[in-house]
Amino acid sequence: MDERAALALIDETLPAAGDDAAVVGSLVVTTDMLHESTDFPAGTTRYTAGWRAVGASLSDVAAMGARATAAVAVYGAPAFDPEELSAFLRGARDVCADAGAEYVGGDLDGHDEFTVATTALGETEAPVLRSGATPGETVCVTGTLGRSGAAVRLFPNAPERANDLFRFSPRVAAGLAVAPRAGAMMDSSDGLARSLHQLAEASDCGFRVEYDALPVDGSVRDLADDPDDERDLALYFGEDFELVFTTDDPEAAREASPTPVSEIGTVTEGGEGVRLDGEALPDRGFTHN
Amino acid sequence: MDERAALALIDETLPAAGDDAAVVGSLVVTTDMLHESTDFPAGTTRYTAGWRAVGASLSDVAAMGARATAAVAVYGAPAFDPEELSAFLRGARDVCADAGAEYVGGDLDGHDEFTVATTALGETEAPVLRSGATPGETVCVTGTLGRSGAAVRLFPNAPERANDLFRFSPRVAAGLAVAPRAGAMMDSSDGLARSLHQLAEASDCGFRVEYDALPVDGSVRDLADDPDDERDLALYFGEDFELVFTTDDPEAAREASPTPVSEIGTVTEGGEGVRLDGEALPDRGFTHN
Repeated sequence: MDERAALALIDETLPAAGDDAAVVGSLVVTTDMLHESTDFPAGTTRYTAGWRAVGASLSDVAAMGARATAAVAVYGAPAFDPEELSAFLRGARDVCADAGAEYVGGDLDGHDEFTVATTALGETEAPVLRSGATPGETVCVTGTLGRSGAAVRLFPNAPERANDLFRFSPRVAAGLAVAPRAGAMMDSSDGLARSLHQLAEASDCGFRVEYDALPVDGSVRDLADDPDDERDLALYFGEDFELVFTTDDPEAAREASPTPVSEIGTVTEGGEGVRLDGEALPDRGFTHN
Repeated sequence: MDERAALALIDETLPAAGDDAAVVGSLVVTTDMLHESTDFPAGTTRYTAGWRAVGASLSDVAAMGARATAAVAVYGAPAFDPEELSAFLRGARDVCADAGAEYVGGDLDGHDEFTVATTALGETEAPVLRSGATPGETVCVTGTLGRSGAAVRLFPNAPERANDLFRFSPRVAAGLAVAPRAGAMMDSSDGLARSLHQLAEASDCGFRVEYDALPVDGSVRDLADDPDDERDLALYFGEDFELVFTTDDPEAAREASPTPVSEIGTVTEGGEGVRLDGEALPDRGFTHN
């Protein structure tokens, strides 16, 4: 069973699961596990790892349109080097401060592979689900796409710049700002293409998106080998943790959001599928292995 | 740096950390990571693993004297076998039901070693900390000691009985019942000896405990090679997830608790250390490696 089938099994078993975060009353809670071989390329500092691991969970809170309140993490490593651990904690605290949340601690685990498990909490009276998109709405994305893919390319030769690119701002403030106007929302952690397919499935809708409207990150244009490679990084690589949302008032959403919002297409009927420049957009992306 | 020194570093960095769970307003939150090589002996079913991993976090909520509300988990494994995953989810849900909490989902991670990260949430207006013990109070423990150590011995030859012993009831109801009368409280996850030392350090007190007063589990008496081995399992093995607490009214605590409560000794002044039958009790126990 692949990861997607396994996630479907969890969703069937647990009605509260299946969105970016679980909803418990007015609380949202989300948890992730990241580890060295798949999530932290050689050269990733522990500061960046702490930032990014906790940031990934804060991004899920943002995707619910919720206020981020607190986060915890477990730091699993073969040894506990004080400088590495301090750097990790600093990264975790700084990303929480960036998102308006408090980093309240966690635990340690002696573990062969560097592994981090994070949990973030948030609050909202009106969570924005993946299932609320309606045909006719505009589909938007915050920030830029492909930055993390570009960072992974940069690690071997320019690790400092790669670390900078790899630390993203969880879009909590943007999520709160657009939530009252959003039909459906999720984050782009598995790439834009997969996010659109997941929204389409949850909302029983289709999407029509234009490539030229996508906010491809400048670093991607610099680093891509050719136009096909650029499209791969922008559409499929993922791990950018931007928000993808639908709205019937994109102008108001754009004005309310502290992060740039790009209109990339429209919501269509369920039977029409996910189309990019008129062609079917493959449902592939970053599957965590 | 060993795990205890690293935990001390975390506590210095994060004022909200350092107890069984972090306190955020009236919310308590706690997270753990367990993995195959150290936490799940060969023969542990995925049902037991789900129960036990989520139960460990619920036990930390119980140790704060809080009501358990919800839990999430990340299931990290080399492959996602539907039967194993379903069994894990069933165990996670059943231990939550046992503790009055809701299991609300989580995530998956492809991971070389079977690894589970769990987070539990609770609510209380008056968390019971490790730092509230006062000389003259009675020190008590819920349930029995040594059951998990006995289970580990049983796995090679009697895996079914071992799995049964290995699934513990998080003492949430007992924690709620004794909280109004408790000075300090924590769970016995690292063993009774280490718990007493941790309470002594946090409360700046000592303890005088009698071995004959300890509620050693019947399975330990059956399985121990000799009296020394029995003491090892009861005092140091840990992982029993019982509550260790101090109170000035042990009779009321015993009457209020749905789980048996044993009076095992008294709180003394800080200079007196932790003593068992008049001898210094070594500060050793289960350190997760």
